[in-house]
Amino acid sequence: MDDLDLTICRNRTANVTGTLSHQGIPVSHQDILVKQKKHRFLFGSNWGESTLALVNGELSGREKELAELRNEHFLQLFNQATLPFYWSRFEPQRGQPQTQRILNVARWYVNHNCEVKGHPLCWHTLTPDWLLTMSNQEILRVQLDRIQREVSNFAGLISLWDVVNEAVIMPIYDRYDNGITRLCRELGRIELIRTMFETTRTINPQATLVLNDFDVSPAYEILIEGCFTAAVQIDVIGIQTHMHQGYWGIERIQRVLERFERFNIPIHFTENSIVSGHLMPPEIIDLNDYQVSEWPSTPDGEQIQAQEVVSLYKTLLAHPAVQAITWWELSDGGWLNAPAGLLRRDHSCKPAYDELLNLIKGEWWLSPTRMVTDANGKFFCKGFLGEYELSIGHQKCTFSVPEKGEASISISL
Amino acid sequence: MDDLDLTICRNRTANVTGTLSHQGIPVSHQDILVKQKKHRFLFGSNWGESTLALVNGELSGREKELAELRNEHFLQLFNQATLPFYWSRFEPQRGQPQTQRILNVARWYVNHNCEVKGHPLCWHTLTPDWLLTMSNQEILRVQLDRIQREVSNFAGLISLWDVVNEAVIMPIYDRYDNGITRLCRELGRIELIRTMFETTRTINPQATLVLNDFDVSPAYEILIEGCFTAAVQIDVIGIQTHMHQGYWGIERIQRVLERFERFNIPIHFTENSIVSGHLMPPEIIDLNDYQVSEWPSTPDGEQIQAQEVVSLYKTLLAHPAVQAITWWELSDGGWLNAPAGLLRRDHSCKPAYDELLNLIKGEWWLSPTRMVTDANGKFFCKGFLGEYELSIGHQKCTFSVPEKGEASISISL
Repeated sequence: MDDLDLTICRNRTANVTGTLSHQGIPVSHQDILVKQKKHRFLFGSNWGESTLALVNGELSGREKELAELRNEHFLQLFNQATLPFYWSRFEPQRGQPQTQRILNVARWYVNHNCEVKGHPLCWHTLTPDWLLTMSNQEILRVQLDRIQREVSNFAGLISLWDVVNEAVIMPIYDRYDNGITRLCRELGRIELIRTMFETTRTINPQATLVLNDFDVSPAYEILIEGCFTAAVQIDVIGIQTHMHQGYWGIERIQRVLERFERFNIPIHFTENSIVSGHLMPPEIIDLNDYQVSEWPSTPDGEQIQAQEVVSLYKTLLAHPAVQAITWWELSDGGWLNAPAGLLRRDHSCKPAYDELLNLIKGEWWLSPTRMVTDANGKFFCKGFLGEYELSIGHQKCTFSVPEKGEASISISL
Repeated sequence: MDDLDLTICRNRTANVTGTLSHQGIPVSHQDILVKQKKHRFLFGSNWGESTLALVNGELSGREKELAELRNEHFLQLFNQATLPFYWSRFEPQRGQPQTQRILNVARWYVNHNCEVKGHPLCWHTLTPDWLLTMSNQEILRVQLDRIQREVSNFAGLISLWDVVNEAVIMPIYDRYDNGITRLCRELGRIELIRTMFETTRTINPQATLVLNDFDVSPAYEILIEGCFTAAVQIDVIGIQTHMHQGYWGIERIQRVLERFERFNIPIHFTENSIVSGHLMPPEIIDLNDYQVSEWPSTPDGEQIQAQEVVSLYKTLLAHPAVQAITWWELSDGGWLNAPAGLLRRDHSCKPAYDELLNLIKGEWWLSPTRMVTDANGKFFCKGFLGEYELSIGHQKCTFSVPEKGEASISISL
């Protein structure tokens, strides 16, 4: 872990030399207060059903209080939120999309200083049944229309999209018939990805487009290679980890990183979970097959989870290609009823939450720090990449530290 | 199995209407004898170390007799032989290739009416150590030079090549350092395949070029898709099965076929083995790791092997995309000391050999059959695709039945 700490420091911080001036004259020998406002790295989680309901005015009483508590914990820790665009839920009746409901939650997160991601635009799971009566040509048309609609409606709020989800398994998915598997069988994976990415990019050329998968075998690596060889432009490699069957460990994570770093594009760890209760049995292949009514979080499990969460975040933050880590379900009992939250069902904090807070807003964060500028108006600090605020008396200004290493910042008051 | 028999009949036989004439006049009411000479389908096996030694004049006495017995069994059953071009054995000292030795065995098989395949031109295993001191650029040059040399030297004898072997694992192979893994890491799998295939095709434009792999997961399928999307021309998909850990069964084989048939190119089952002794333990991942001094063939094992071999061949022959099945080691004790032969160590026939012979040269074969032409010189027969001989008195001629369904053949004496 010591090595990881050193690598994190090398890859994620800058030595800032700030020069403060007023009308071209150095502001020398002045007391200033510098504090970090935001990480450049995306630390996030997914939307939260209660937050979705809350911002749409659907909660009251105890439910509302609980949702507000969750939001408090969310915003204390995170700067990124992944929002749900699962087609069968977003548009259960054809032509009646739940746009407004999701727009409201997107705006809420943006107003609270979070980067918002849309997930996903094209996936074979949670597709609407009304695709099943269509020809493949029609399915393609309505899929592209959907991309057009969502990406336009959310422009200005969402510029980060999981465009295609789980393409490795998409054409061979055999649990049930669905429109997107049919389409992928006809087009092939690479042509499907090309079509979805090109369409999304045309509608929002500034957006960052992610290919996302839980498959981290050579199959995914070869798919990405195939896309690049075919000149399909993917901006980010998305990797899901969902460790319900046990933490992968530093070595396995590093081996995965080694295999995907060669594409020289950013990597987002898009969906991550580690349970604080018993592990899902190893013989389960599709995690969705493990349906339990009770899956308790245990005190011992919470201690282990905390250590594993720290290990995961440090391992990923240490690697320069990684730009985002999204925790999957902030509170217990979300997906698959798993105790994979950083909070318990009552939104009280588990040790993993506290440890992560100690890192993200502690060890990896510049708390308000008093300094005095020198004779030339200079000040010096070391901090994690991100946004900073500088106060001098009652006056405030902000500055960015975007790149690691030595950073020279000029600030004019 | 009944379904398979019907499908085999539908996909592999033709109803032949032959018309026999002499100087434009029908040869009517004549006794003729029709017999099959060769299958169009490739039923093959690999070279055999004893055959390689025998044709190079290196054997005498009992060893020679045994090798001749093997050859007899080989030629009785098969019409295809795969020959070894493992680089570290073919050219252990740089510049001193074993060309003549392999040329001799290639000629021997061709003279005995077998299609000969070269295996492989580019693979990360069995690479010469002398590559290790080279830069990747030099490795690429000598690899391409080697293709140039082998494909030219064997032109006229070999027009079927396993060009790239096991590309899925090639760049992530971590058992030991080797020149080809290094090269593949730099080029990527698709560019490596492109370079090797294009070079081979330039040297022998008539050759049939195979991409071969033991990996039948989506990774291989996606690699092929990536190659086709990148306009890399692969003629044949090669699939290894090596069932040392147990016969796959009809259903699994059919699922594999379903996933690879979509590319609409022929499939060769290039390396197949089923043991007639105990199974290799399931926890072994790389079959080469299972090193045993004794691995006996058992009477019970031989009975089961025979059933499984029949099931394998019927399942593959029934599928129209499959064009070749190559058994890996005709006799026991070859690769990994496994009892995977159709013959025992003393080259006596196991039940699997007998059953296969009953199919390939029995049920799937037109034995010499007497007929009489009708008033218009016509005769009718049903037979497996391949080469046939027709005798009328002492006169002989040959004809081909290349396509399934209804075949009209005109024969001028």
